[in-house]
Amino acid sequence: MRISIVLILFLLVSFSVTAQSEDEKMLRNIYNEALTHSKCYSWLDHLSNTIGSRLSGSKSAEKAVNYTKVELEKLGLDRVFLQEVIVPHWVRGEKEQAYIENNGKKIEVPICALGSSVATPKKGLKASVIEVLGIDEMIALGSEKIKGKIVFFNRPMTPIHIETFKAYGGCIDQRSSGAREAAKLGAVGVIIRSMNLRLDDYPHTGNTNYGDLPREKYIPAAAISTNGANLLSEKLKENASLEFYFKLSCETFPDVLSYNVVGEIKGSENPDKIMVIGGHLDSWDLGDGSQDDGAGVVQSMEILSIFKTLKYKPKNTLRVVLFMNEENGNRGGHKYAELATTNNENHIFALESDAGGFSPRGFSLEADEANFLKITSWKNLFEPYFIHRFVEGHTGVDIGPLQSKHIVKAGLQPDSQRYFDYHHAANDIFDSVNKRELELGAATMASLVYLVDKYGID
Amino acid sequence: MRISIVLILFLLVSFSVTAQSEDEKMLRNIYNEALTHSKCYSWLDHLSNTIGSRLSGSKSAEKAVNYTKVELEKLGLDRVFLQEVIVPHWVRGEKEQAYIENNGKKIEVPICALGSSVATPKKGLKASVIEVLGIDEMIALGSEKIKGKIVFFNRPMTPIHIETFKAYGGCIDQRSSGAREAAKLGAVGVIIRSMNLRLDDYPHTGNTNYGDLPREKYIPAAAISTNGANLLSEKLKENASLEFYFKLSCETFPDVLSYNVVGEIKGSENPDKIMVIGGHLDSWDLGDGSQDDGAGVVQSMEILSIFKTLKYKPKNTLRVVLFMNEENGNRGGHKYAELATTNNENHIFALESDAGGFSPRGFSLEADEANFLKITSWKNLFEPYFIHRFVEGHTGVDIGPLQSKHIVKAGLQPDSQRYFDYHHAANDIFDSVNKRELELGAATMASLVYLVDKYGID
Repeated sequence: MRISIVLILFLLVSFSVTAQSEDEKMLRNIYNEALTHSKCYSWLDHLSNTIGSRLSGSKSAEKAVNYTKVELEKLGLDRVFLQEVIVPHWVRGEKEQAYIENNGKKIEVPICALGSSVATPKKGLKASVIEVLGIDEMIALGSEKIKGKIVFFNRPMTPIHIETFKAYGGCIDQRSSGAREAAKLGAVGVIIRSMNLRLDDYPHTGNTNYGDLPREKYIPAAAISTNGANLLSEKLKENASLEFYFKLSCETFPDVLSYNVVGEIKGSENPDKIMVIGGHLDSWDLGDGSQDDGAGVVQSMEILSIFKTLKYKPKNTLRVVLFMNEENGNRGGHKYAELATTNNENHIFALESDAGGFSPRGFSLEADEANFLKITSWKNLFEPYFIHRFVEGHTGVDIGPLQSKHIVKAGLQPDSQRYFDYHHAANDIFDSVNKRELELGAATMASLVYLVDKYGID
Repeated sequence: MRISIVLILFLLVSFSVTAQSEDEKMLRNIYNEALTHSKCYSWLDHLSNTIGSRLSGSKSAEKAVNYTKVELEKLGLDRVFLQEVIVPHWVRGEKEQAYIENNGKKIEVPICALGSSVATPKKGLKASVIEVLGIDEMIALGSEKIKGKIVFFNRPMTPIHIETFKAYGGCIDQRSSGAREAAKLGAVGVIIRSMNLRLDDYPHTGNTNYGDLPREKYIPAAAISTNGANLLSEKLKENASLEFYFKLSCETFPDVLSYNVVGEIKGSENPDKIMVIGGHLDSWDLGDGSQDDGAGVVQSMEILSIFKTLKYKPKNTLRVVLFMNEENGNRGGHKYAELATTNNENHIFALESDAGGFSPRGFSLEADEANFLKITSWKNLFEPYFIHRFVEGHTGVDIGPLQSKHIVKAGLQPDSQRYFDYHHAANDIFDSVNKRELELGAATMASLVYLVDKYGID
């Protein structure tokens, strides 16, 4: 009896040592492959420098659909297909103009229209300004003080959060709801301080949402650079009755047919269990969308390429989805979830990369306790690659609508310090992405996919 | 008996909870201070953009000594002083020129002289080229094949290392000893592939060491950009007898008097126990030395500023040293160590930041087992700031010569992925440093200093 227990223990230990070594070897192979033969950086080069920004409904978004479909087809997958998504078609129009008019002196400041904003009158809009730190403060002032004015939302991102997305979360209501709430109080326009932790001259766009406001009540909304916001605030302290002029020429056209792009490797053992990996193919129009989210797109594609090269055949179906329209509607994410329900699909895992192409630090996870513990038990495998953070939290907008009985969701967490330097701004360009950091992110994702595929979701 | 054990356990736990909370609070205060009121970024702005590169013996190195001394004096320390250091005075001279001459066609390539190199003849130097992957390969070829030739050392950095300094360590012998060894075999010059993991057009300088070679045998040595190296290698495959031309105008002048800059807060309990923190004030001359090592200089200064603002009085003496001449001699580091011995000083701790101003990941440590375990027991305090790595390894060149009976050495480890994109090249400039990342590094260093000061070295 004693001997057999010892034997069993020995066998168990041997097995676990072997299994461990096999995983260690596989992760090493994945990282080596990503760091030496990856395609992701040249894919990003094409997406960013040949195609450029990819706003939903634009010609370039259409080109990006075609390009990534063709590139996925080259990988020899089991299936590459498109999912129809009807997307909004908003166009920025002419370059925006703005100035502070203070005692007869005009000082130009850099602004950009927020996504979905209506235009100003053709000659622009000039009014006096009321500065607030948030929607509550504006509501407390009441419609008498807001009526006929431009509301200037100037609450900055809080620098003390180590995870910069937390600081973003603390400001974003100004951009998403500021115009709607200001319109209700009779404001004629809103100017929002850019969501940027740096002081610089880039205005950062992003969507604004008029909600159920009647269309004739919509007011124009623009972001101002952080330097511009500081200047405006300073000038308002000197002269509360100065005026602000801005001109937006943006326009919303009828919805357009676009697509999610999907590439799939069928599972060798459980073809009905689906692991979905993705990023979003659309981007804002000011830069070329390399960080947001060209990086996530090409990293997701790279996982397929790595597995193909290493001849790793996943047990479960591996599906890469390049979602359309995350930025101003998330219609691609909703369409994917809707089709998953219609087709009665069983998704066990969803992984998104939509936090930039920076050096990876870990994953955020949405999982029950058992699966959270299971995934964190793999931490030691990631240690050699400096991947340490496995935390509960928001994982991704595109995979948000997807629901399944037993699903674990994960979001790649790159280092977040520089992300809001570029986010939704004209400097979100190819040169801001480092090739190795992009590749390390792809390898980190591929490693998690491999482990989830091998050990399953409980 | 039982009760008293429970009581003791209770008291121990209570104490540890209280102690823990006090440290947690102090670290939070340190990070908050660094992220909201730090001076390091504006100091770096001045060092980089007003003063510029700070090669040993240069006018700008002298300016940097004066500037940092004045800034340290503003902090209200107990002592600010200079340590005399005699440094080499090498000057690059005119911009270097180089081309590949292949079948009568000249293709210009970007090169730069290696530090300490001698000049070529005034008209430049033209010879055929022999490409090798390392010194051993060259020696195996023998002097017959090397004589009269330019040796082209083209071993690239290995991309699969996650820590890029490891890849650097695997290549650096080409730069430091390539010219010396090639000269012994009768080569007329050497061209070294830049130590850069990217493909781009920046040549990366760095010191070369002729060792005990007689002066008349010195041969000119230059680095070529990675794109240039690939091109040269490709052209050599087409035509092994092509020629390479390069012209260097560099010159070595007599040694010059310079200084380490030292700022000190006297220890309130153990003034004779010294904790030394530093970076190096000198830099190469191609960029402005923001990453290498302006960042380490201003982060070290920031620690003093944070402690002053938070009114934290260290128990042990805290000394910040801005070392001179790390890049081409390490004479500042040697001088500091020599004076420490002469003055019979007791150093318990040395911390260096000389790996760029990137997002901090942890520390390398040189410590005996007891102290290594002690420091790693503080890991959980660093967890909220995403500082995870505490590893044994090289800590810093400047603190290298310092020896003391019981000393623990530490090196700040920022994320290393981008470091060799800038290292010793013309793009090592202020804009490559992110303010928050710089501040987080300073806070991480200050936190370790606080804990070492409070809990001592065993």
